[in-house]
Amino acid sequence: MAGDVVTMAHGGGGTRMQDLLRDMIFPALGGQTLDAAEDAAILELPPGTLAFTTDSFVVKPLFFSGGDIGKLAVCGTVNDLAMVGARPLYLTLGLILEEGLPLDDLERVLASVAGAARDASVKVVAGDTKVVERGKADGVYINTAGVGVIPAGVEVSITRVTPGDALLINGYIGDHGIAVLKDRGDFAFDVALDSDCAPLAGLVSDMLGAGRVHALRDPTRGGLAAALKEMSSCSAVSLEVDEPAVPLREEVRAICEVLGLDPLYVANEGKLLAAVAPEDAAAVLEAMKAHLLGRNAAVIGAAGAGKPGRVSLTGEMGSSRLLRMPSGEQLPRIC
Amino acid sequence: MAGDVVTMAHGGGGTRMQDLLRDMIFPALGGQTLDAAEDAAILELPPGTLAFTTDSFVVKPLFFSGGDIGKLAVCGTVNDLAMVGARPLYLTLGLILEEGLPLDDLERVLASVAGAARDASVKVVAGDTKVVERGKADGVYINTAGVGVIPAGVEVSITRVTPGDALLINGYIGDHGIAVLKDRGDFAFDVALDSDCAPLAGLVSDMLGAGRVHALRDPTRGGLAAALKEMSSCSAVSLEVDEPAVPLREEVRAICEVLGLDPLYVANEGKLLAAVAPEDAAAVLEAMKAHLLGRNAAVIGAAGAGKPGRVSLTGEMGSSRLLRMPSGEQLPRIC
Repeated sequence: MAGDVVTMAHGGGGTRMQDLLRDMIFPALGGQTLDAAEDAAILELPPGTLAFTTDSFVVKPLFFSGGDIGKLAVCGTVNDLAMVGARPLYLTLGLILEEGLPLDDLERVLASVAGAARDASVKVVAGDTKVVERGKADGVYINTAGVGVIPAGVEVSITRVTPGDALLINGYIGDHGIAVLKDRGDFAFDVALDSDCAPLAGLVSDMLGAGRVHALRDPTRGGLAAALKEMSSCSAVSLEVDEPAVPLREEVRAICEVLGLDPLYVANEGKLLAAVAPEDAAAVLEAMKAHLLGRNAAVIGAAGAGKPGRVSLTGEMGSSRLLRMPSGEQLPRIC
Repeated sequence: MAGDVVTMAHGGGGTRMQDLLRDMIFPALGGQTLDAAEDAAILELPPGTLAFTTDSFVVKPLFFSGGDIGKLAVCGTVNDLAMVGARPLYLTLGLILEEGLPLDDLERVLASVAGAARDASVKVVAGDTKVVERGKADGVYINTAGVGVIPAGVEVSITRVTPGDALLINGYIGDHGIAVLKDRGDFAFDVALDSDCAPLAGLVSDMLGAGRVHALRDPTRGGLAAALKEMSSCSAVSLEVDEPAVPLREEVRAICEVLGLDPLYVANEGKLLAAVAPEDAAAVLEAMKAHLLGRNAAVIGAAGAGKPGRVSLTGEMGSSRLLRMPSGEQLPRIC
């Protein structure tokens, strides 16, 4: 299909759309149980409580170091399910394609969707394709929705942080936002840096097996700062963060300094913030470090009994500042 | 919020987005169980098999006679669940907003989402909001995903049509496509015509109670023609349709004639094509006619043992023609 592009007819529900599905979309997602014929996927679920979520993705550019919109669309929804303690099982895939999108680009994106789904042990079981005119949609927008099952006994909630809980993170912050910014080409950074985009359900499963994890949040838009503020507000606790303990690559720190960005507010796509019962913090940290996606995990602070919503940061020299919720996003269209 | 518009910051994951959620989105969907705090909705399901589906909506214009993109987004996904015999339960709502969209328009769309969800007895339980720059996304694109439960004993599948089955439809075809076209303003039609956009799960439930319904399909993009072709291909049967028996409003027929459109290929958003065991056809038809959304129901043909995928139409004078699958859509951006 080299040289071919998406046309309006590909979204029309007729033979041109069937061709696209049969020749490209189904083969790319092959091995998944996506059922071509029915209007909805028909699934058997293991016992447990259902978790259900959705995310749309409008990242610019579509392809960036360490990932692309397809990988991001799978990881984002898988991670939202993992953050409530669910084992992600099934995804839907909604594509809004721009007329003129090279079919080769679509094929690359679909291959990423399939690869990320395989990595995350989820199946893409239903989908939808629409086409909009040239100039709309920046190539492709993707929506994924996901269902998963929360095993009996697992109770993870953003409202369950308790004073004394340890705050853990699974590695370096800000990589995703800076990698995407770098690939937009607005700035000339001569630095090798990949997005951290990754599915976190396996890591979460190991953590839940190691100790009492009370709350989880993935610090995406709004960065670690937004995740900390939401956790403290929703659980009505204060949080104290030891800023030098927050893992941060030297390259990310340097680029943020040059651009006047605060890395605490930069988006991540493969990170989680966890609140863990203090007596279990060492065991959970160990389980994280034993996982590929948690090798650089660290304890970065603790929950306190101070004012709900109050997040204080202690700096290098013992200085302290209060964290503010961001108003918008420093870097639009980051996911 | 009169005069206010969507800004890029509304999609940033910070306080501006929280304000939009708290001040507009949650109140509009109020009474639903949409949980503001968690990354995924946590749900208990009744027993049965899970059905899971998704649809994105890019209709132009956003508001049209008989509906808008919000109502359409709920009905489209509810109907896909109903077409496999599922009782729709929960929806997710993914919004891609264009910078500059009047907040009043967003509020109208959200009110429609809420109203349609109420009518369809489904709850919007999770959502996501992204913002793209001015000139993209035509105001708003919406994705909905839905889960429902197929009760034990219900076996409806596009592959289950059997030679002899009666083909039933629940009313007039083509209303949606022509109503949207009319409201695009490309043509001056002085005609009162509403989209048929409606949630079909209640009607389906009544039909399933009245007799053996083998297969269901909602004739959306590609119209009744695409639904007939898909049914015959997937079930490997031929279909014979009595064209004069297909309910068609005089206004729709007249506009189609002027524009050179075939109403069989025009999209519907509140119609279903059903294949029913012949001895139960009268009872199912009666159940349809007793329902508000089936008052104009009719038997339009039957399945035969001819060539799989062959759909023949018999006309007024006994003339016969073969139906072809459309290649694209006569009217792009219809849903």
